[in-house]
Amino acid sequence: MNIILDCDPGHDDAVAMLLAAGHPDIEIAAITTVGGNQTLEKVTRNALGIATLANITAPIAAGCDRPLVRDLLTSAEIHGESGLDGVTLPPPAMDLDPRHGVDLMIDTIMESEPGTITLVPTGPLTNVAMALRKEPEIASRVAGVTFMGGGVGVGNYSPVAEFNILVDPEAAAAVVSAPWPVTMVGLDVTHEAQATPDVIDRFRSLGTPVGQFVVDLMAFFTESNESEQAFASPPVHDPVAVAQVIDPSLMSYLASPIVVETSGAHTTGMTIVDRRPWMSYDSRSRAALTLDVERFWDLVISSIGRLR
Amino acid sequence: MNIILDCDPGHDDAVAMLLAAGHPDIEIAAITTVGGNQTLEKVTRNALGIATLANITAPIAAGCDRPLVRDLLTSAEIHGESGLDGVTLPPPAMDLDPRHGVDLMIDTIMESEPGTITLVPTGPLTNVAMALRKEPEIASRVAGVTFMGGGVGVGNYSPVAEFNILVDPEAAAAVVSAPWPVTMVGLDVTHEAQATPDVIDRFRSLGTPVGQFVVDLMAFFTESNESEQAFASPPVHDPVAVAQVIDPSLMSYLASPIVVETSGAHTTGMTIVDRRPWMSYDSRSRAALTLDVERFWDLVISSIGRLR
Amino acid sequence: MNIILDCDPGHDDAVAMLLAAGHPDIEIAAITTVGGNQTLEKVTRNALGIATLANITAPIAAGCDRPLVRDLLTSAEIHGESGLDGVTLPPPAMDLDPRHGVDLMIDTIMESEPGTITLVPTGPLTNVAMALRKEPEIASRVAGVTFMGGGVGVGNYSPVAEFNILVDPEAAAAVVSAPWPVTMVGLDVTHEAQATPDVIDRFRSLGTPVGQFVVDLMAFFTESNESEQAFASPPVHDPVAVAQVIDPSLMSYLASPIVVETSGAHTTGMTIVDRRPWMSYDSRSRAALTLDVERFWDLVISSIGRLR
Amino acid sequence: MNIILDCDPGHDDAVAMLLAAGHPDIEIAAITTVGGNQTLEKVTRNALGIATLANITAPIAAGCDRPLVRDLLTSAEIHGESGLDGVTLPPPAMDLDPRHGVDLMIDTIMESEPGTITLVPTGPLTNVAMALRKEPEIASRVAGVTFMGGGVGVGNYSPVAEFNILVDPEAAAAVVSAPWPVTMVGLDVTHEAQATPDVIDRFRSLGTPVGQFVVDLMAFFTESNESEQAFASPPVHDPVAVAQVIDPSLMSYLASPIVVETSGAHTTGMTIVDRRPWMSYDSRSRAALTLDVERFWDLVISSIGRLR
Repeated sequence: MNIILDCDPGHDDAVAMLLAAGHPDIEIAAITTVGGNQTLEKVTRNALGIATLANITAPIAAGCDRPLVRDLLTSAEIHGESGLDGVTLPPPAMDLDPRHGVDLMIDTIMESEPGTITLVPTGPLTNVAMALRKEPEIASRVAGVTFMGGGVGVGNYSPVAEFNILVDPEAAAAVVSAPWPVTMVGLDVTHEAQATPDVIDRFRSLGTPVGQFVVDLMAFFTESNESEQAFASPPVHDPVAVAQVIDPSLMSYLASPIVVETSGAHTTGMTIVDRRPWMSYDSRSRAALTLDVERFWDLVISSIGRLR
Repeated sequence: MNIILDCDPGHDDAVAMLLAAGHPDIEIAAITTVGGNQTLEKVTRNALGIATLANITAPIAAGCDRPLVRDLLTSAEIHGESGLDGVTLPPPAMDLDPRHGVDLMIDTIMESEPGTITLVPTGPLTNVAMALRKEPEIASRVAGVTFMGGGVGVGNYSPVAEFNILVDPEAAAAVVSAPWPVTMVGLDVTHEAQATPDVIDRFRSLGTPVGQFVVDLMAFFTESNESEQAFASPPVHDPVAVAQVIDPSLMSYLASPIVVETSGAHTTGMTIVDRRPWMSYDSRSRAALTLDVERFWDLVISSIGRLR
Repeated sequence: MNIILDCDPGHDDAVAMLLAAGHPDIEIAAITTVGGNQTLEKVTRNALGIATLANITAPIAAGCDRPLVRDLLTSAEIHGESGLDGVTLPPPAMDLDPRHGVDLMIDTIMESEPGTITLVPTGPLTNVAMALRKEPEIASRVAGVTFMGGGVGVGNYSPVAEFNILVDPEAAAAVVSAPWPVTMVGLDVTHEAQATPDVIDRFRSLGTPVGQFVVDLMAFFTESNESEQAFASPPVHDPVAVAQVIDPSLMSYLASPIVVETSGAHTTGMTIVDRRPWMSYDSRSRAALTLDVERFWDLVISSIGRLR
Repeated sequence: MNIILDCDPGHDDAVAMLLAAGHPDIEIAAITTVGGNQTLEKVTRNALGIATLANITAPIAAGCDRPLVRDLLTSAEIHGESGLDGVTLPPPAMDLDPRHGVDLMIDTIMESEPGTITLVPTGPLTNVAMALRKEPEIASRVAGVTFMGGGVGVGNYSPVAEFNILVDPEAAAAVVSAPWPVTMVGLDVTHEAQATPDVIDRFRSLGTPVGQFVVDLMAFFTESNESEQAFASPPVHDPVAVAQVIDPSLMSYLASPIVVETSGAHTTGMTIVDRRPWMSYDSRSRAALTLDVERFWDLVISSIGRLR
């Protein structure tokens, strides 16, 4: 399986990258970055550092530094000033791809066999919306889009909106309405993917530098999530999207149209999914509803354990 | 306990009236009607008929025939052309109170001892919003407001909006933001209050004309709910609000501000409650989250069983 | 011509009351007050004082103290702390009517011959919207509604919204969409009705106590409008609506539907009129576009000159 | 003066291209096309045809085929099925630039000396918003942006919205809020730029093939504008933006922030300019308010007269 990771690392984006790098069936075709958890400059530097750590050789390009219409909102309170506080990254062993992230995304999709690339955005959907408008053909060329973001009636940065969608609701609206298969991996499932002390012990027991790196990441992430959102153990959102691509059977889903509210006084950034039991849709989009937490962590830990 | 029932009967409003009439601790201080499930004319006629059936002697007045700003939306597909299809009502034994429903509501509250009246709206909140604006003092005079409507991230007439709120979102916005204690009894709990065949059998077993009347009501309501919303057994929404006043221990609650979206493209009529676990509010409003279904039906059936 | 003045005095409301009181063809059937330029308590006290000054014997009742849905916004910077700074009012010679303003409005309309009463609101439209919802029959009983408010693409409290509409846009939306003839007297014409030094001299030359009262009103109003809105001479908005009823030929009009924006991020409170030249409407609503300023002041000054 | 024309020809876009091609002081650095008056495919073909007719040698590239978030709305009723009904275009003498229009726009700006390029969009602002997000540096590199679109309180495709802005309000919102000098050439001035019979006669009197081409264009445009918008003579919107760049003294301006409404129920696509006389802004954006019509046509006709 070939994926494009579109991300804003970010502690949980870092784990998502490591999961993708470590799983034998995943080939990372490209990595693109987007302003979100921190500024574009910072998340791009972080992406290069993680790629170096994990020997990722895919091209990496910087994308958009701000949302389509609105000002950028970052999440320094969760990810720290660097976007990846708590760890020291190795100096990057590779250069950025000279292309813009949006172009790397488009080129990678258009130069691959149809139906072979899955887009996996784990940040605001700005780059993806831009790519869709610049090259509408990508909609029929990808295998699908699995994004981390949103939720079915649950939010984190507002009572009903999740951070990635709230940062760029217009981009999200464009992405979920495009004619491609969309799987939303939202807070309903990612709030279950908590790095408990037991999970962190398992990373430590890997006895590898990368395992220890994740332990260090989670130490900071545990503290910031506890102080900001009162989670005893932090939800590690982004690798759930990668895990969905690797093994869709880890989750249950609701087939439904997904729309994004862009004009509500209290609901902007909300993803609306129709879970009324009497409605049934033959929809190309779906929302993940439940997660097999144990198998999820097994997958993540065994994959990351392969990284030397 | 003294209550004012503000309603739009409606099959489940009818059961709410009968519950209130039959419970020994409830005194119905007044009944007001509002356009909603059917037109004002029809629901008012229905209210008089039910009151006659149940020997309710409280004053009954007709209120507003349409929402504050929008056009009226009715629910004939659930309640039929008459608003109470499936039963034959006795000719009314009483006259309407000559006052407007809004004035009967205000007068009843202002002429009672402070803190003795609970407002129980089970239709669109037009009358209540009108009363609040006409006599703001009622906000500090009532014991509280327990309304059937809304939901925590769940809807029926849209993916996220419940009928009563969707019909008059501006009125709902005014009601939930007023300085009085508000308990929202929404779809989260009322969807649990289903009139199963077993429940209907218990009404039949009462062996009373009123019991049989409920059986007949539920026969139609079962059919309409099944064809419209695929419920095998229909949710009987409105008596849950009356039951909440009688015995608050029937439900669990989330203390939270409640706001109503009035300007969303996809979310108008949604009630927004903050259920993020890390937020905690010392709020005068709360949303019912879970219902003790068995005790609820015990309460309803025993109360209605007292009506001869 | 019989009118109901629904007002929030306010300097220009005061002049509107005096114009109505002084013109031989106008009978003031009732005066109702509404929170707007200042709090309900203050504008009601002011209405009683002006009525005393002008020997107005119509019933006067206090209406709503806040908008249908939103919090009250007042205009103390234009009208001062009392709502009528700059003058001393006589002690009121009459009591308030015991009815609520909304009821006085309804009763006055319903007890008159159909088509004989014109409603003239010069404040936020809260009372009028409430009356419409409480007694929908008034829509077919009045001769029409002439309100001061709004504008055709011009605003004062926002780039595109006028104060009266911005304070209660939901009420305004209800009023302009009701099935009665509506004439909007907005900023397009009222900004022309400026109390220039020459106009003020003419009030002074009346040599009457009421003339001097207007001079004193305008002294304060000139200062506040100059400091707030840079008018060398203040626009005296509200009497233009009364003048429209007395002599419609004072203005030119555009027949068009009128709608009020209630959900825009930048346009809430705007009145939208369709002035595209290629659209033509056989509409029961219209917007005043131009004013014969000279004849307007002649009318105002001669009418107020009759008051002793 | 170097300009990039971003357009969707379109009869008036065609005249804009011809004006730019014919004026001795204008160098067309690039032409980009965008879906608007007709589909991207059609307007791109039209741009190539006009360029061939006028010997334009600048690179021409196709841009976005639909708005950032919304579905495309075209204007076939004004421009016909081809987007340029009424004339026959020569076969294109050049190829499209292989780059995407957004990239041609960015490259052209970034490869020129700072402050030398003026962007002149005469269609929906999709390409410009995309370029801004892809390369934010362009905001400080251009001399400015002069767009045809919007209006000060006047609309054509809604009572308050102009077509170009209504088609992609989110793009327009991004463009007017970016940190570059923006001049809005809206309906206030372009409705004055009517191709009267006298103007058309002057084109005919040029005695050139291009002059005759404009005559033919205007024949169709006169009919479509008359039947759709009741103009006796059609407003030729887009060349007014080019003329503004050539000779800013043709117009008067209001310095004001410009915002675009994206969430109003009745006002989406409206450009809001603050023309309250008491507000004054030291703003980098401004709206054209009046046009010297005679000098405008002199400029257009003499420029187009140079084309052989």
